[in-house]
Amino acid sequence: MNLNEWLNEEIPGIAKALEDINKSHFFIEKTIGFAGKETIYKVLHDFRSALFPGVYDKYPIDETRINIIIGNRLRTSALDLKDLIQKVLLNKRAKADCAETRSECYTKADEIVIQLLKLLPDIRQKIQTDIQAAYDGDPAASSTEEILLSYPSVEAISIHRIAHELYKLDVPIIPRIMAEYAHQLTGIDIHPGASIGDYFFIDHGTGVVIGETCTIGRHVKIYQGVTLGAKSFPLDEHGNPIKGIKRHPNIEDHVVIYAGATILGGDTTIGHNSVIGGNIWLTQSVLPYSKVYNSQPSPNIK
Amino acid sequence: MNLNEWLNEEIPGIAKALEDINKSHFFIEKTIGFAGKETIYKVLHDFRSALFPGVYDKYPIDETRINIIIGNRLRTSALDLKDLIQKVLLNKRAKADCAETRSECYTKADEIVIQLLKLLPDIRQKIQTDIQAAYDGDPAASSTEEILLSYPSVEAISIHRIAHELYKLDVPIIPRIMAEYAHQLTGIDIHPGASIGDYFFIDHGTGVVIGETCTIGRHVKIYQGVTLGAKSFPLDEHGNPIKGIKRHPNIEDHVVIYAGATILGGDTTIGHNSVIGGNIWLTQSVLPYSKVYNSQPSPNIK
Amino acid sequence: MNLNEWLNEEIPGIAKALEDINKSHFFIEKTIGFAGKETIYKVLHDFRSALFPGVYDKYPIDETRINIIIGNRLRTSALDLKDLIQKVLLNKRAKADCAETRSECYTKADEIVIQLLKLLPDIRQKIQTDIQAAYDGDPAASSTEEILLSYPSVEAISIHRIAHELYKLDVPIIPRIMAEYAHQLTGIDIHPGASIGDYFFIDHGTGVVIGETCTIGRHVKIYQGVTLGAKSFPLDEHGNPIKGIKRHPNIEDHVVIYAGATILGGDTTIGHNSVIGGNIWLTQSVLPYSKVYNSQPSPNIK
Amino acid sequence: MNLNEWLNEEIPGIAKALEDINKSHFFIEKTIGFAGKETIYKVLHDFRSALFPGVYDKYPIDETRINIIIGNRLRTSALDLKDLIQKVLLNKRAKADCAETRSECYTKADEIVIQLLKLLPDIRQKIQTDIQAAYDGDPAASSTEEILLSYPSVEAISIHRIAHELYKLDVPIIPRIMAEYAHQLTGIDIHPGASIGDYFFIDHGTGVVIGETCTIGRHVKIYQGVTLGAKSFPLDEHGNPIKGIKRHPNIEDHVVIYAGATILGGDTTIGHNSVIGGNIWLTQSVLPYSKVYNSQPSPNIK
Amino acid sequence: MNLNEWLNEEIPGIAKALEDINKSHFFIEKTIGFAGKETIYKVLHDFRSALFPGVYDKYPIDETRINIIIGNRLRTSALDLKDLIQKVLLNKRAKADCAETRSECYTKADEIVIQLLKLLPDIRQKIQTDIQAAYDGDPAASSTEEILLSYPSVEAISIHRIAHELYKLDVPIIPRIMAEYAHQLTGIDIHPGASIGDYFFIDHGTGVVIGETCTIGRHVKIYQGVTLGAKSFPLDEHGNPIKGIKRHPNIEDHVVIYAGATILGGDTTIGHNSVIGGNIWLTQSVLPYSKVYNSQPSPNIK
Amino acid sequence: MNLNEWLNEEIPGIAKALEDINKSHFFIEKTIGFAGKETIYKVLHDFRSALFPGVYDKYPIDETRINIIIGNRLRTSALDLKDLIQKVLLNKRAKADCAETRSECYTKADEIVIQLLKLLPDIRQKIQTDIQAAYDGDPAASSTEEILLSYPSVEAISIHRIAHELYKLDVPIIPRIMAEYAHQLTGIDIHPGASIGDYFFIDHGTGVVIGETCTIGRHVKIYQGVTLGAKSFPLDEHGNPIKGIKRHPNIEDHVVIYAGATILGGDTTIGHNSVIGGNIWLTQSVLPYSKVYNSQPSPNIK
Repeated sequence: MNLNEWLNEEIPGIAKALEDINKSHFFIEKTIGFAGKETIYKVLHDFRSALFPGVYDKYPIDETRINIIIGNRLRTSALDLKDLIQKVLLNKRAKADCAETRSECYTKADEIVIQLLKLLPDIRQKIQTDIQAAYDGDPAASSTEEILLSYPSVEAISIHRIAHELYKLDVPIIPRIMAEYAHQLTGIDIHPGASIGDYFFIDHGTGVVIGETCTIGRHVKIYQGVTLGAKSFPLDEHGNPIKGIKRHPNIEDHVVIYAGATILGGDTTIGHNSVIGGNIWLTQSVLPYSKVYNSQPSPNIK
Repeated sequence: MNLNEWLNEEIPGIAKALEDINKSHFFIEKTIGFAGKETIYKVLHDFRSALFPGVYDKYPIDETRINIIIGNRLRTSALDLKDLIQKVLLNKRAKADCAETRSECYTKADEIVIQLLKLLPDIRQKIQTDIQAAYDGDPAASSTEEILLSYPSVEAISIHRIAHELYKLDVPIIPRIMAEYAHQLTGIDIHPGASIGDYFFIDHGTGVVIGETCTIGRHVKIYQGVTLGAKSFPLDEHGNPIKGIKRHPNIEDHVVIYAGATILGGDTTIGHNSVIGGNIWLTQSVLPYSKVYNSQPSPNIK
Repeated sequence: MNLNEWLNEEIPGIAKALEDINKSHFFIEKTIGFAGKETIYKVLHDFRSALFPGVYDKYPIDETRINIIIGNRLRTSALDLKDLIQKVLLNKRAKADCAETRSECYTKADEIVIQLLKLLPDIRQKIQTDIQAAYDGDPAASSTEEILLSYPSVEAISIHRIAHELYKLDVPIIPRIMAEYAHQLTGIDIHPGASIGDYFFIDHGTGVVIGETCTIGRHVKIYQGVTLGAKSFPLDEHGNPIKGIKRHPNIEDHVVIYAGATILGGDTTIGHNSVIGGNIWLTQSVLPYSKVYNSQPSPNIK
Repeated sequence: MNLNEWLNEEIPGIAKALEDINKSHFFIEKTIGFAGKETIYKVLHDFRSALFPGVYDKYPIDETRINIIIGNRLRTSALDLKDLIQKVLLNKRAKADCAETRSECYTKADEIVIQLLKLLPDIRQKIQTDIQAAYDGDPAASSTEEILLSYPSVEAISIHRIAHELYKLDVPIIPRIMAEYAHQLTGIDIHPGASIGDYFFIDHGTGVVIGETCTIGRHVKIYQGVTLGAKSFPLDEHGNPIKGIKRHPNIEDHVVIYAGATILGGDTTIGHNSVIGGNIWLTQSVLPYSKVYNSQPSPNIK
Repeated sequence: MNLNEWLNEEIPGIAKALEDINKSHFFIEKTIGFAGKETIYKVLHDFRSALFPGVYDKYPIDETRINIIIGNRLRTSALDLKDLIQKVLLNKRAKADCAETRSECYTKADEIVIQLLKLLPDIRQKIQTDIQAAYDGDPAASSTEEILLSYPSVEAISIHRIAHELYKLDVPIIPRIMAEYAHQLTGIDIHPGASIGDYFFIDHGTGVVIGETCTIGRHVKIYQGVTLGAKSFPLDEHGNPIKGIKRHPNIEDHVVIYAGATILGGDTTIGHNSVIGGNIWLTQSVLPYSKVYNSQPSPNIK
Repeated sequence: MNLNEWLNEEIPGIAKALEDINKSHFFIEKTIGFAGKETIYKVLHDFRSALFPGVYDKYPIDETRINIIIGNRLRTSALDLKDLIQKVLLNKRAKADCAETRSECYTKADEIVIQLLKLLPDIRQKIQTDIQAAYDGDPAASSTEEILLSYPSVEAISIHRIAHELYKLDVPIIPRIMAEYAHQLTGIDIHPGASIGDYFFIDHGTGVVIGETCTIGRHVKIYQGVTLGAKSFPLDEHGNPIKGIKRHPNIEDHVVIYAGATILGGDTTIGHNSVIGGNIWLTQSVLPYSKVYNSQPSPNIK
């Protein structure tokens, strides 16, 4: 029997098996559907095009039409986002079996979108401080334009600042998909729950992980491979991790954390103006103005 | 002389030089050709679309046509993959100067494709356990849907589980290209030779490296920056590394390995139910139920 | 008020606010504009298609037309690159307020492009040594073809070798955008200023950072997560980092640096034929033929 | 007031006016929606790709996979077509206010699709006779392959033979959209109701119009600009044309009709083996073996 | 000498020759450039999408967002059109060597765009009458929806009604490109200068030509192949046709013109409620309520 | 049985039937394959882009790079065309069973391409005369630029002038596919065999048919719906039309042919400076300076 004949004969059975597995494990497209992922990427693109007119466009744009272009993008992305949020809110309601009506979900979706749009100028201002921080913090940066065009930090933080607002407005799933998109583009994995102050800069960035309940002050600078993570997960009576408690550290203003450092725990606070050395493993708080270095034994050199 | 004139005059020579270098070093497109890379990505997309109908589609799909859609994708990708495998088998035969005939290669390609397709429902079941492991292991995960949509671990492991089957069927090159594709998307670098049990979860993932001869049990969880690598390479009489021997560790069931840990060596076995702490450097076996932490000196805090 | 009405009423104001912020912080498209980023990616694609005919093409190419195809791509990318360089040179002149005339900038752009094109056969030869280094250095590599198709190292180094020549020709911004593009594709972050010898190989690569003023010899091999960075930044009288001084280490010939090692400082030289162990933190020079391992205390195993 | 300000102020009003007009005249997307048009084009493409594997493909297809490719296309287009037919049947039911249930519409849609698919081999055979007719009838044709690749007649008739079957199965709107698509591509306007025998050939074709109730025999050949139309429309008591009565002529076997001829009326029959000359205006029947030429006065030549 | 070598040697010369011919005959891109053609198509698409939300969209649109979608399209196309009109006005000024300043051209462009946008609801209303005319006039039409989806007449007239307004506002070139676009899509060639009343319907349409200075009343219906053309061109003293005088006929209300009729001359008026038979050749006026048929000799039937 | 089940069961059989019909009637892709059609369109696009740099480009092109752009397009299209010609020549040889060797076909393909490329500047010059003829002949034309951008005549004749050269070089099939492409775009159907002099203009053009063996002089102008066709086909002993004899008329210099005229026969010659009126039916020669009008009876006007 050749391959064609085998395919004609056996594929219906294999397709049936795959269909059954999919149907038994979750209802396909129950919430935003998987198609929603594409739309979220599009919304992010449109928002960022509105925040930085020209950056994400394939061709140069005319200065006299910036206003109209920004407006059109905001209108389009507002409607796309509203649809997505409606779906995730309705789904959440269904799961929670709560009293919220369908039309309350619709109203709430409208309100969330309006809330986010009102915040956009503020978000844009914050990202401007992040650009400034990169310029001030990296001796290799020769202009703010260079930073905007070639620093993954700006890419990651601009997506985060949008995702974080949606997270605070209790939107499920969508902020996480946004964060993972930034992760894929930059290697920087910031949970949308993390609260991050102005003038934030991540140099190089690959491998950085910033956990859900982190709080980070202003003028903080971190390097590649830094983890701001959880120490351990308290388990419930069934041995499952308890969700939603403070698990990640606090970083105060003007702190620098060098490459590969690992700072863990919800009670851990790095006092302001501290410097954490490379590869440091830290599970306890340090006072302001601390300098933490490994007192590591000199390596053996033969 | 302006640039246009220079180009008209000098480009033929430079093009000739580049052509010569390419021809002297390897015959272009001898095996699957470089064009095959694109086809491999397409095959992966089609297989994954069949495994998770809807996930990789741009637009929502109709539930009543899932069966037909899965079937069509499997048929198409089966034929694409058959072509690729024929080419790499014929090339391998040419190099090995063995007795295998051309038509034996064709038959073998058909058999490999059939073998892989038969395994797909099983592969899909395994990936379902990986999704479950992510849900159980990450306190930030609020639903299995969220995991499927936003966890790089699922992306990497689903590609690996396909690539690994082709590796076991002795298909050259193709599994490696698949693995590197996952690496590019997620920052997780799993060699297709690695054997990985059910319920596998990698959190965050950036920088994870899992070597060719690793064996990993069930219910294993690892974090970003973990290396499961080789200790050293035995060299042959010419000073070249000897290929094909066991070089990477064994991780037994229910092991957790925290961020940045490095475990090296083909003889190294991490006994079941062990916990390996962050940044641990380990080149020797540990018993089941071990907890391995750095007895690192407290950092200097000034 | 429903969402549509709100959008019609409020969007003009929000769009105005965003427009104002953008205008106050930098003039949009002053230099290459953000649209130039896309063109740089295209130039890179065209150059690499010329260096490796077939690798970056969607469909197989006919051997008899390789010469013409290479030539066409070089001509096209030469003109695209010339346009970009003209813009960045004119902008630099504007900023520097120097005496250079507009036509001198044009001439210089032509010269730079011609210079780069003349170097392409040499660049191609160097990349061939990098491919060889990968084959010799990785026991898992089964053919040079496999390396070309599936090793991120080749992707990163081939972009770097182009960007580095432009960097040496004093082209602003463009080389950095090229480098960041490679970073995004591979997780390997090499500053275009870094000087790297033949036969260079990076295994796995995720998280590697190589700083601007690094010099790396021939036959050097490094693993994932290695940082070749700066120790500290001398500040000027205003507290800003002084730009343009030697800040990153020198790696001599035949050095191997294992995963996660961090080597810092412009005065730090790793003597030839040395081996630097995994996770080593090194801020001082070592002699040739050194072997540097962590004399780390055995981990606690309970 | 500049254009931007005017747009911000006046566009909401104009958009509202346009929205209102659209809503007052017909409900948008009530039936297949306008988006259905694209799908119909896609279905036609898929069907014709199945009828002539390779003709409508961008790249050459492999002979060993023709069977699978045909099968996949038929499955896909069957499902697309089923969706469209369901919609038009449900809409027809709604308008007719008849007793047909929703599920009866679904069943009927399935049956129509199955019916059409069963007919495909027969349709393909008929088109083969049309190709043969073109070869026999045009002295400029040098091979059947040339005809298939460059004769608009084949394009128009192959679409018609599909549309006609759907028309006979009482599918609303869809066959007409198919016919107009052929009209746009070829300038040949054949109403899907027209019944056309084997070995049909239209030379050049631009401007040909063939009405709804035409019947055309076997081995008929017509030239550009020929109209087979209605003589007049009987009006009902309201002065509207009465729909659905026989209005267009009958053309028997082996008839040739030269360029620009106009044949009108439902009672008009052109007897078999007749020849109708160019620019003839004919509103009455002619016997078999007739030769009809204009006894037109010689033109004045000065 | 093989082809590659010949190309390398001879192409620069042939390219130079082609460049020279182009430069000697007209300055490339002097006015809207050829790239403007694409933009005009885009503007037409956007306008028609605003007039008929959903018709020209690839995917169904959500009813709640129609208002915003219309608005966005109008804003975008307004700006695109403004740019085009600026260019053609500046070019016209340059040619005319008139006193109009650059900024007067800009102001005029803005005014023209605003004027057109204000007219859009009125244009939309008129097209609605054309749809109605098609329904009333064609016994084969089963619904207005069918007409909108499958009648070339609607396609041609909707483009014409836009182009005609620009023609009346003295915009050069752009209306002609719009008209030719409609011609290509439908085979109906209406000069943008033609003035056409409400309830206009062209059945089948291929080959219809309507000249620049035609005036057509309300409720007029014409068939395929009808020409409303010029009788002869008065020549100036140099033997060139004098441009800009009335050359094409007037068609009053409620006239029907059957297929292939030719009506010529600026003084020719077809009185209201007349019927012009097929293939009629008419170069003189006829009174209202006339019925014009060919008293053609019966064809010879042998 | 639902549709999915029916498809799974019956599609293999229907696909098999369609495959069998295709295989029995002609070997798929025997010559240029159907995929070649796309390539021919691409070649035409590239040639025309080289003839009119900027006309067929989506975006404006830089004047300083016109030379290089033209060169690149010629090189690319030369190679594409060579491949196509090789295939049709080899196929012709196979059919003719002649002595021509494979390598002679290759050499001939190279020669044909070189021949065509050498002719391109001449072809370009001729098209310039066609543009001039349009300007002089149409009172509605306001600039040569308008003509180039919006006259189907230029589109059709520029494709014809390329196709005609290939026809004269005895290339099978390819010129016909080119001609049909022009037919589809413009409604003007010119057989590639027709010989057409300088300063040729077709106004409106829909429905024009110009036969294979026509010869047309210089300064000829024709209108929509004109047919230059064959009177009758001499049949061979089997009743098939004899191919390759002179069947279409000769039109001498400075002739004007008005809309709808039909001129037939290989012996028919229209003497120079003649005018042929609209709808004239002419099957005999007329002397130079003739004016041919229908002495048609006045229509009945009631």
